Amino acid sequence: MAAPSASAPIITLTTDFGNRDPYVASMKGVLLSFNPALRIVDITHEIGPHQVLEAGFTLARAFPAFPAGTIHILVVDPGVGTSRKLLLARTENHFFLAPDNGALGPVFEEEPVREVVCITAAHHFRTQASPTFHGRDILAPVAARLARGTALAHFGEPVTDWVPSPVPPPARVEDGRLRLQVLAVDRFGNVVLNLKESSFAAARGTSASVPFSLEIGGRAIRRLLRTYGESEDSEPFALFNSFGYLEVAVRGGSAGVLLAAATGQPALLSV
Amino acid sequence: MAAPSASAPIITLTTDFGNRDPYVASMKGVLLSFNPALRIVDITHEIGPHQVLEAGFTLARAFPAFPAGTIHILVVDPGVGTSRKLLLARTENHFFLAPDNGALGPVFEEEPVREVVCITAAHHFRTQASPTFHGRDILAPVAARLARGTALAHFGEPVTDWVPSPVPPPARVEDGRLRLQVLAVDRFGNVVLNLKESSFAAARGTSASVPFSLEIGGRAIRRLLRTYGESEDSEPFALFNSFGYLEVAVRGGSAGVLLAAATGQPALLSV
Amino acid sequence: MAAPSASAPIITLTTDFGNRDPYVASMKGVLLSFNPALRIVDITHEIGPHQVLEAGFTLARAFPAFPAGTIHILVVDPGVGTSRKLLLARTENHFFLAPDNGALGPVFEEEPVREVVCITAAHHFRTQASPTFHGRDILAPVAARLARGTALAHFGEPVTDWVPSPVPPPARVEDGRLRLQVLAVDRFGNVVLNLKESSFAAARGTSASVPFSLEIGGRAIRRLLRTYGESEDSEPFALFNSFGYLEVAVRGGSAGVLLAAATGQPALLSV
Repeated sequence: MAAPSASAPIITLTTDFGNRDPYVASMKGVLLSFNPALRIVDITHEIGPHQVLEAGFTLARAFPAFPAGTIHILVVDPGVGTSRKLLLARTENHFFLAPDNGALGPVFEEEPVREVVCITAAHHFRTQASPTFHGRDILAPVAARLARGTALAHFGEPVTDWVPSPVPPPARVEDGRLRLQVLAVDRFGNVVLNLKESSFAAARGTSASVPFSLEIGGRAIRRLLRTYGESEDSEPFALFNSFGYLEVAVRGGSAGVLLAAATGQPALLSV
Repeated sequence: MAAPSASAPIITLTTDFGNRDPYVASMKGVLLSFNPALRIVDITHEIGPHQVLEAGFTLARAFPAFPAGTIHILVVDPGVGTSRKLLLARTENHFFLAPDNGALGPVFEEEPVREVVCITAAHHFRTQASPTFHGRDILAPVAARLARGTALAHFGEPVTDWVPSPVPPPARVEDGRLRLQVLAVDRFGNVVLNLKESSFAAARGTSASVPFSLEIGGRAIRRLLRTYGESEDSEPFALFNSFGYLEVAVRGGSAGVLLAAATGQPALLSV
Repeated sequence: MAAPSASAPIITLTTDFGNRDPYVASMKGVLLSFNPALRIVDITHEIGPHQVLEAGFTLARAFPAFPAGTIHILVVDPGVGTSRKLLLARTENHFFLAPDNGALGPVFEEEPVREVVCITAAHHFRTQASPTFHGRDILAPVAARLARGTALAHFGEPVTDWVPSPVPPPARVEDGRLRLQVLAVDRFGNVVLNLKESSFAAARGTSASVPFSLEIGGRAIRRLLRTYGESEDSEPFALFNSFGYLEVAVRGGSAGVLLAAATGQPALLSV
């Protein structure tokens, strides 16, 4: 079982707060008030405002690189101040705090979930918690106390009915192809789809001789390469990226622009 | 009295340097050259170029969450290289370094000022201080030495005539209403005004039965809610935000866009 | 000779990854997995995608402020997955890791190079290194091991034929003037040229009485000032900036916009 490292606990932050307003720094101030030795690492604060899926998928790709015992706080919280729950989860190697809005769905697909509680223990909150900034006033103090080794059960009651991921898994459609969905378009214009290499292999099974064909944005991508450098022309191609996901890229350009791709856009893959 | 924590001094940075140029990293390099164990926290570097008020108001909201003894450096410095002074201030619990251009005004409204000196002790500066980058060559070395416990008096002479805040306080106008001003529009489009909840209560006094009415951007806002989630339509509403300031928001949209709001825009509040 | 500080090794990051995707955090996770006490400092992640010169020149200006023994990782890597090499360099006081694409050229002009190896020792890489993310899977683990004091020779063979800087040095043209080039336009619109103050003095030699004249963007700049505050009108002027480079600025405006300046733009200086 994972436990926060007593020597130098690491806390990561994933939010839609941007880097201009005082929100991120306020959370860091609260964390450091509990323990000035905490290591705080920004995953990103540039999640689109209220984009729950984008936040979850970004954290899902970033967290496995961190040491076991790392505590990850995700704050994309359109429902702040309503009756939505706040979750504290323990997976095989990591801890997660987030509003119960589906954002942790992509995370839970990466690592087995061991324990989830609904955060209710108000004596662990910041004094006079604001109804509009639970990241600073509830999640940060709870994370700081968790980093001291407090067990999950001290923060609330177990729950099992959290809001599921907003991303449907790849699904077979009538003609036998897999219906996929764009999860992200990165800074380089690479278009990331909701299919991992392991699922691709499983879906192909004995039909591994079917030629690669991915339909997306009105185009058919027929090349599956191993790295960006293998492409010698300006045609878009596919590869499994460094996080294991199917991705469409184009040499010297933006596949996102070429395919007019956006999060949620559908794609069809022959398998 | 506050003193920088000997164990793990925290230094925060608030600048208009952006995150693309080498300015911020240069300051961090100087700080870490003095003491590699310093904890450096970015408040923000996305202050609009030369926007003194924006810098001060951002820091004023962020700093109270930090532990007592934290040292805050603010560098928005259109007058670098001129005769403007550099200030080192001690408030009840924190330390601040900034050019003397009014930026610390909003900070000084949050916490009693105990001591302010004009930084003049050149032997504490970086060797061959550049006339165009005092953040790196004067404020960073002084902050690093302050973090070692050096008293303020070693850095310069006391001053009391610093440049005042560029924000006027809320003022009564002829019809008895309060004239307010927009201080910030955040990433979510929330419009923040220069009125704290405590001042609102004081201004209303026995007239607390006056219906809430805020005129801004050609609109009259008539609802004062407690949290964003209480709004069920797309009409703009007011609330006191998590920093205690009056704010206008709109569900699922940007109050800033709706009201064409910008820093400095006036508003009128019935009290 | 420089050696990474055993007490608190500092590692800086300069990339074109942006701050929205999971790439930067993944590198930090790997670094902290090796040693949670590492001090990681962001130089910038906003280098234009694949802009090798911009990355190198930004790092070249930032690194000298860091303590001796700091390890700097630069990842702008359009050739990832091809046969381009990965370099590990030791200069007089610092360490650098980067793809062999010329990015380290501007760095090597700042400080004498002592030792350069081509990183080949795969047993120091991350298990199952991805062909598309060498920053996370090769440079981060190698940097973390370097921070433990491993000698350069353990990571690969010495090389001397690295790709040179993409920036030509200032050159005399037929009429005796110096041909310069814009290296950067900063957030304030200041236009930075590839001429250091020491080279300017050397080039002028005994002709120091020649009036200052810089032709750029269809304009002739005739004033060389010491600091921004000396300008009292809206005419563009030159100065040597806080990093020692010739720069064109304009009071209360953007020289970059005024001169329609961009990286690579030529300029002519009378000397």
